[in-house]
Amino acid sequence: MTKFAIIVAGGSGTRMGKKMPKQFIEIGGKPILMHTIEKFLSYDFSLQLILVLPASEMQAWYALCDKHEFYPPIVTVTGGGTRFQSVKNGLQRISTKEGLVAVHDGVRPFVTPEIIAKGFEVAAEKGAAVTSVPLKDSLRFVAEDGSNQSAERASYQLVQTPQTFRLDWMRPAFDAPEQPFFTDCASVLNFAGREVTLIDGAYENIKITTPEDILWAEAFLGSHH
Amino acid sequence: MTKFAIIVAGGSGTRMGKKMPKQFIEIGGKPILMHTIEKFLSYDFSLQLILVLPASEMQAWYALCDKHEFYPPIVTVTGGGTRFQSVKNGLQRISTKEGLVAVHDGVRPFVTPEIIAKGFEVAAEKGAAVTSVPLKDSLRFVAEDGSNQSAERASYQLVQTPQTFRLDWMRPAFDAPEQPFFTDCASVLNFAGREVTLIDGAYENIKITTPEDILWAEAFLGSHH
Repeated sequence: MTKFAIIVAGGSGTRMGKKMPKQFIEIGGKPILMHTIEKFLSYDFSLQLILVLPASEMQAWYALCDKHEFYPPIVTVTGGGTRFQSVKNGLQRISTKEGLVAVHDGVRPFVTPEIIAKGFEVAAEKGAAVTSVPLKDSLRFVAEDGSNQSAERASYQLVQTPQTFRLDWMRPAFDAPEQPFFTDCASVLNFAGREVTLIDGAYENIKITTPEDILWAEAFLGSHH
Repeated sequence: MTKFAIIVAGGSGTRMGKKMPKQFIEIGGKPILMHTIEKFLSYDFSLQLILVLPASEMQAWYALCDKHEFYPPIVTVTGGGTRFQSVKNGLQRISTKEGLVAVHDGVRPFVTPEIIAKGFEVAAEKGAAVTSVPLKDSLRFVAEDGSNQSAERASYQLVQTPQTFRLDWMRPAFDAPEQPFFTDCASVLNFAGREVTLIDGAYENIKITTPEDILWAEAFLGSHH
């Protein structure tokens, strides 16, 4: 089956305290998003890659590509107002009926080719493969009245990306009207009645969100390259 | 009211891939545990500090104190087989009837004096103050049959330490027989029928658990000192 990857780079830099979108911040001398794209290409250079970017950031992205002489074989698509819409826009660029699609956050540059491979493998067999890791900290449930209670940490997993799906499961799921509880693709597939299979992510596969994450990323790059 | 802090340094280094207990690993030229103790002393040098350490690590700790000429005003107590037992052992060294007790992980060296202060302040008023942060990632609930479903991320908080309590709430709670779901002090207090108040922790107040966390800690220290 043909393999696709949709890389979603929609976030603004609000939590980062910078005006530059976080996916464009440089780590190890290169924008975060380029590291992420390279990981997918090093998994399989024939992978069909779709990059979803906000319309307002296209020009800056192409300027960065020129600056870094970064011209990978990717299709670029304009994002929507929400993550759901952005993924849907990416999905609409896929014309084949059958295939497998990995969806990945542009700001998770430390995904490994092994994790990407496992996602496609399990999605081919089971239909939907979602990376996750166990919680390191205790968890509390906060009720609507503001009261809180212990939640059983071992019964929960923190979800990451990639999240990889059969195209013929994913397409009808994304035809549904958007729901407020769609925080990731897995929740969209669940709403369409599909079960997802959890596979091992990695603690180092962080989503770069805060200034501390940038520090971590620089340290991690320094020790692994 | 007299203020106490119990610093629990019970963990082994198994997830760290090292033989040395993780609290003794040096960051910025000094064992993690010394950074943690210094944060509490910089909050209030008259705080009554109780350090709980496994019996097998006492000798190594005193050797490190000599090496680093680190002789803070702390009482050292032998840990138990579980975190619950360790905290209980620390609690038994407190002879007064009234007071406030902050419990903190020895491997969270990036707690701030401001967070410690807030814990004592809210515990004095409400009885129990527990630091926590919102989740950055989506959350899945995994049922006993292995199936999983989306959980509403906004309804959960990741728990940190310090967790600060009125002594007269804490002591009877720790007289209860230990339960398998006691993952932190808040769950012990809940079991005794006490409500806890959540206060803001901080993302940088990490629990150092993996080799990547050490890298992060070094980078964070480098950028803040």
